[in-house]
Amino acid sequence: MATKKMFLGEEFLPTRWYNLNADFPTPMPPPLHPGTGQPPGPEDFAPIFPMNLVEQEMTPDRWVDIPEEVLDIYRIWRPTPLYRADRLERALGAPVKIFFKNEGVSPAGSHKPNTAVAQAYYNKAFGVKRLVTETGAGQWGSALSFACQLFELECKVFMVRVSFEQKPYRRSMMATWGASCMPSPTDTTEAGRKILAADPDSPGSLGIAISEAVEEAVARDDARYSLGSVLNHVMLHQTVIGLEAKKQMEALGETPDVVVGCAGGGSNFAGLAFPFVADKVAGQQIQVIAAEPASCPTLTRGPYAYDFGDTNQTTPLLPMYTLGHDFVPAPIHAGGLRYHGMSPMVSHSVKTGLVEAQSYDQIRAFEAGVLFARTEGFISAPETCHAIAAVVQVARQAKEEGKERTILFNWSGHGLVDMAAYDAYLSGKLAPYQLPEEEIQRALAAIESLPKLG
Amino acid sequence: MATKKMFLGEEFLPTRWYNLNADFPTPMPPPLHPGTGQPPGPEDFAPIFPMNLVEQEMTPDRWVDIPEEVLDIYRIWRPTPLYRADRLERALGAPVKIFFKNEGVSPAGSHKPNTAVAQAYYNKAFGVKRLVTETGAGQWGSALSFACQLFELECKVFMVRVSFEQKPYRRSMMATWGASCMPSPTDTTEAGRKILAADPDSPGSLGIAISEAVEEAVARDDARYSLGSVLNHVMLHQTVIGLEAKKQMEALGETPDVVVGCAGGGSNFAGLAFPFVADKVAGQQIQVIAAEPASCPTLTRGPYAYDFGDTNQTTPLLPMYTLGHDFVPAPIHAGGLRYHGMSPMVSHSVKTGLVEAQSYDQIRAFEAGVLFARTEGFISAPETCHAIAAVVQVARQAKEEGKERTILFNWSGHGLVDMAAYDAYLSGKLAPYQLPEEEIQRALAAIESLPKLG
Repeated sequence: MATKKMFLGEEFLPTRWYNLNADFPTPMPPPLHPGTGQPPGPEDFAPIFPMNLVEQEMTPDRWVDIPEEVLDIYRIWRPTPLYRADRLERALGAPVKIFFKNEGVSPAGSHKPNTAVAQAYYNKAFGVKRLVTETGAGQWGSALSFACQLFELECKVFMVRVSFEQKPYRRSMMATWGASCMPSPTDTTEAGRKILAADPDSPGSLGIAISEAVEEAVARDDARYSLGSVLNHVMLHQTVIGLEAKKQMEALGETPDVVVGCAGGGSNFAGLAFPFVADKVAGQQIQVIAAEPASCPTLTRGPYAYDFGDTNQTTPLLPMYTLGHDFVPAPIHAGGLRYHGMSPMVSHSVKTGLVEAQSYDQIRAFEAGVLFARTEGFISAPETCHAIAAVVQVARQAKEEGKERTILFNWSGHGLVDMAAYDAYLSGKLAPYQLPEEEIQRALAAIESLPKLG
Repeated sequence: MATKKMFLGEEFLPTRWYNLNADFPTPMPPPLHPGTGQPPGPEDFAPIFPMNLVEQEMTPDRWVDIPEEVLDIYRIWRPTPLYRADRLERALGAPVKIFFKNEGVSPAGSHKPNTAVAQAYYNKAFGVKRLVTETGAGQWGSALSFACQLFELECKVFMVRVSFEQKPYRRSMMATWGASCMPSPTDTTEAGRKILAADPDSPGSLGIAISEAVEEAVARDDARYSLGSVLNHVMLHQTVIGLEAKKQMEALGETPDVVVGCAGGGSNFAGLAFPFVADKVAGQQIQVIAAEPASCPTLTRGPYAYDFGDTNQTTPLLPMYTLGHDFVPAPIHAGGLRYHGMSPMVSHSVKTGLVEAQSYDQIRAFEAGVLFARTEGFISAPETCHAIAAVVQVARQAKEEGKERTILFNWSGHGLVDMAAYDAYLSGKLAPYQLPEEEIQRALAAIESLPKLG
């Protein structure tokens, strides 16, 4: 039997990130300043992000060198192993080869540190002393806490109160890495106080937490804000996943026909997929699938439009698939997929036909996740289960059609800090959930007055 | 900068387990049948364990081939990476090199699957349909659930009730892998009913859970009992850790002066250390340290004596360091180290001077664990923190003495399912705890009437 796992050497670790913006057949529409209606300049971002990251956000360069200081920390867990899921293949009985990239081996247990480490490095290099961010379920907050600790930056995390109370383990991880984590809304910011005045028992929301984090970041010269998904520079940093996977697949003599990732804000999906999307742009036959939850079907049900990145309308207008910045997704267990919008780069890839989107109910996602745990052993994050559901569907279709397929998917993180979700599924407490049509229409009303996109 | 992490290939995966029993300079005393006072024969173990494992328990052979079916599952996560902890070295400022073996990459997050997979295989090969075990904190129960799922065996776990209620994540992991887990005491066994009759609210104990598991296992012809530590065959299976580490260290051109593991029942310690203890027997200078908790100081405070493996006196008498089978350790957070006895093989190694034992208060253990998380990134299991505390002490001593040292330790598992322990430590809720002398004396009274050992 061949080696199942590809624990590979230093030579598979990329030394450059890949920027799909250099290869889009038609360029992405720019973001817009909501006041002027014009594309914002670097100076508009200066109070929020350090200038070196703003440059990366806007760069047209195809390749960006990874600083040695970042590589040195990547080496803690990178290159990540590429696995052949042969037990899952046998269970499905389909004419497919299934490979997955295990991003769960990072200290924080997901792909998030790929950009957290880069962002901490660039902020440190720019002279920033303190990073402020928000987190929902806690995967991003814990990744940034880890990264800040290694670069000796202070880290402050506003965590949506309901998650703060329900997910004490994530909170303890942040504390272990020396970060300060507060349940949002707090009485330490104007945005928080406003909410608490209206509702002292507010459970919080990602939108409120973002507002608090940005307010605290811009209030201090030595502090900046950090975002774990959506933006171009985040997609850029995550491409280490796909670049590594490509080299590993090549070393195996394999080429994927289908590339799959789950998509909330888009970062783990883009990280694996964009280097393969580049091959598609160059003419290669390859199906690229973004799997999203049926409860927050941004790519499959939202319009492609200009919208704010946050509920409080403080960000530039981003060209993206969106359900409207007022949209509040149902409290499904895949917290990382509960975002009203989508990375503009991922959105443009879908709009131009390079990527296709599919949505999966959480019941189907956990069904696939349990099948994976019972064949491959590893317990997947609820987000990742959506990618596995897509893989299962591709395999079943291949079986029906009698067509051979080589599938590669991003196993974006383990679920060991999310076991309550499995408990709910296994005890029959999870119900299928389709977003009602009228709820989509109501949410979309919020963006009616904003500039339109083709 | 050199590669920090040794993600190595198939050639580092051992194909044989190593049996230190073949190399002890003086042979281990045998176990004794409590009724006859004679060593038990294989037939005495037959209702409890399958005969192929009983043979391994008693074998004098130096090497035992690892079956291909077991290797095939080991490949899911083995070889495990060997890391150089250079950030920890810099933080300690001592003239030491520190290497660690990362056993946390297994699906269950610890070293436990090394023997769980082997035991599931041998039981399956023997025709067993169902394995029964007990678990305290849940690390062993989840590892056996995982292994049984891959070999299509039924798995039933009696989990100490207080842990069942406090550690829902471990319970959910077992359910995800298809095992049935019940809070012990239950009303499904005689042993359980006896306890419940006396105390309907009994929080349970490992001793009670073992009695329930053995009772259920022996009641059915197609069922057997499985134990995750202490026994010779468990130590044997765990030696994959040390055999791999030796080859990896050799590939780096390094030889450890000091080898460290934490010790509860002894399995992760023996797994890393025994292949190096063999070198010590052959004349090599090497310090081997078993780190145990001050709250359950079996090796450092217990006598070397014959004692039962369980509270209810159902096992053979084992020659070991013990605090007496009545001893109930304080509810410290390192649940895996709360055992009154110690593997007879580890005990014999200590008795004959091949291994030295040191005990650490849990405060010092978590202090070391937090230092590790803040330098190396990974969050350690509370048990593993005790090994890190020993490493820190060796490094500080090396600094004082100005002596260079190469240290290798077993990072036996991650702590992501044990974050409540970090929370307690970081919020100042953990107190230092030394076991009172009178409590040791009281516990030892239970073994006064048992056969003595030199």
